[in-house]
Amino acid sequence: MKLMELTPWETPAVIDYKKTMEQFGVKPIVDVLGDLKEEHHFFRRNIILGHRDFERIVDAIKNNKEFAVVSGMMPSGKMHFGHKMVVDLLKFYQKYTDNINIPIADLEAYWARNMSFETTKELALNEYITNYIALGLDPEKINVYLQSKYQKVKDLALILSKRTNWSEMKAIYGFKGETNIGHVFAPIVQVADILHPQLDENLSPEPKPVVVPVGIDQDPHIRLTRDIANRAKEFKFIPPSSTYHRFMTGLLGGKMSSSKPETAIFLTDDEKTVKKKIFSAKTGGRETLEEHKKYGGVPEECVVYELFLYHLILDDKELAEIYQKCRSGELTCGKCKKMAYERVVEFLKDLKEKREQAKEIAVKILEGKY
Amino acid sequence: MKLMELTPWETPAVIDYKKTMEQFGVKPIVDVLGDLKEEHHFFRRNIILGHRDFERIVDAIKNNKEFAVVSGMMPSGKMHFGHKMVVDLLKFYQKYTDNINIPIADLEAYWARNMSFETTKELALNEYITNYIALGLDPEKINVYLQSKYQKVKDLALILSKRTNWSEMKAIYGFKGETNIGHVFAPIVQVADILHPQLDENLSPEPKPVVVPVGIDQDPHIRLTRDIANRAKEFKFIPPSSTYHRFMTGLLGGKMSSSKPETAIFLTDDEKTVKKKIFSAKTGGRETLEEHKKYGGVPEECVVYELFLYHLILDDKELAEIYQKCRSGELTCGKCKKMAYERVVEFLKDLKEKREQAKEIAVKILEGKY
Repeated sequence: MKLMELTPWETPAVIDYKKTMEQFGVKPIVDVLGDLKEEHHFFRRNIILGHRDFERIVDAIKNNKEFAVVSGMMPSGKMHFGHKMVVDLLKFYQKYTDNINIPIADLEAYWARNMSFETTKELALNEYITNYIALGLDPEKINVYLQSKYQKVKDLALILSKRTNWSEMKAIYGFKGETNIGHVFAPIVQVADILHPQLDENLSPEPKPVVVPVGIDQDPHIRLTRDIANRAKEFKFIPPSSTYHRFMTGLLGGKMSSSKPETAIFLTDDEKTVKKKIFSAKTGGRETLEEHKKYGGVPEECVVYELFLYHLILDDKELAEIYQKCRSGELTCGKCKKMAYERVVEFLKDLKEKREQAKEIAVKILEGKY
Repeated sequence: MKLMELTPWETPAVIDYKKTMEQFGVKPIVDVLGDLKEEHHFFRRNIILGHRDFERIVDAIKNNKEFAVVSGMMPSGKMHFGHKMVVDLLKFYQKYTDNINIPIADLEAYWARNMSFETTKELALNEYITNYIALGLDPEKINVYLQSKYQKVKDLALILSKRTNWSEMKAIYGFKGETNIGHVFAPIVQVADILHPQLDENLSPEPKPVVVPVGIDQDPHIRLTRDIANRAKEFKFIPPSSTYHRFMTGLLGGKMSSSKPETAIFLTDDEKTVKKKIFSAKTGGRETLEEHKKYGGVPEECVVYELFLYHLILDDKELAEIYQKCRSGELTCGKCKKMAYERVVEFLKDLKEKREQAKEIAVKILEGKY
């Protein structure tokens, strides 16, 4: 009976996420998606779970109205499949809008991580923007910018900094006496990143819905942004909408992290590395083949299954079949790993080819020449 | 004997100032002036009393080297003779440099005083810049800018904000939890105002001495600026020099303030108003004419004498004569007031005429068209 209660996408992890969202007052996104649910496997598979005011975006998409998307990047280390997820989301939105804003958080990197502007720019260019383009983002539809170079956002941040105070920043971000003032200012630049699409170049109001796709851990920041939007009445902001997705598990079961190469498949990994990483990955298999056949596997605890769920198998029927065959013990971990390996390698090979041209476009984008 | 100990410029107020300076580690300027002492009555008359690193500026002036001056303005109400003093100082410097920077603190006014950018700009234009030009500042030698519009300074402030922290800002400025973050950021914009002349448009180092003429109450800010200059080694800043002047007393004996019209003669006051203000002013005269003739007046406590000292009598001999005649009781307050009134009226009449053309220049300056 227990087997039947679970579905390929309603895992225990999902249920935990839902509890967290409830605490924060984040609403289940399924309630407002309508037909849109069928449009992306992230919706169908509970990868995007919650939202604030996403009705506005559903309305804009359905009725062909203007809306904007903001999704920042903090370049640190190499891009992996966790990052790809965000790009997939942006690819979904670019079907409906050409107002997709991608701030590169070089000011924050400078203040909070002591990274030079040059280092951040190089990393953003060679690793992030190049892969974003290679993954299929349309250069015509995205506004990629370095925070440190974008006057509109800097000016807006300076103005909006009047709308919050030390007590609030301290409470939200845990700042201390020794926190440098730039670091204290960094979240306000992010607020400006999110709100700037609602203003023209002279900072005059052009209200429109904006959506920010983030992980649930980013919700305090979304709340601050919405509060500041409400306080700065002169700009007539529509409080930004947000969606909350869950994160991929690291290959070894813990967190996925750029700084721990064994936890993630990088978009630039070679075949050999991919093979090693996938075949070392934590699965939901039983200790022995015998037990596996007897009791069945646990896909909910399998990071290879997660690769299928997020990235490698977009057909729901195909995925459901794998899910069932794993749970029944018919499908063994070796087979799954082999399949994952083959698909990842094929995907990365194709991506590598696309990166060559993408790099040229990325250079032009950062030079403002695209 | 007591009479002889005093000089026309070594007043008890001056002695108090010197004590304060000593506490802060500010040095007496007379020690480094050399021949320059004779160049301005502010030096000769102890109106500028102290300094930090002013040797650098003396050296630059004597040896015809490059240096810059920074003197901010916070437009609030109408300009009075206290403000004129700062312009007189800048007129002194413009004989030796064309790098005179005059930031208009519209960001600070917005954050700390809730003034709109438009209000500050109008006030700066109609009242301050117009009078600055009419008083004799050379439009070719000054760089007047609105903080909110000057990218170089804003960008520098964002970078330098990494070099101080909440504890330091709180200790210097007394900020509290409810202080808005813009207000916390305002002193860093001022630091950037002072340091920016040492950088080119791309923020690459062009080290040069900079002097900031301020009142002694501004010294904590000068110290912060010098500390940040030392911390931000990548910019190769020369720590800015400063001079400290004393302030004119208000006409009624207390503080001079734009918001209390009876305490100051405004540069736009008409004859009748000037007459009323000067004849109501606090003097160092005795209670009766008889006593005055017997004991003599006290010019050190006379705001009319201060008008002579700061603005109306530039000839030292003439001033010394008035000083002695007052102290001996020969010169009565009525006569001094009449003389002050006549000179102020003549000065303001001339200034009014000059303002007409100056206004046009001021408009062009703020439009960046001068």
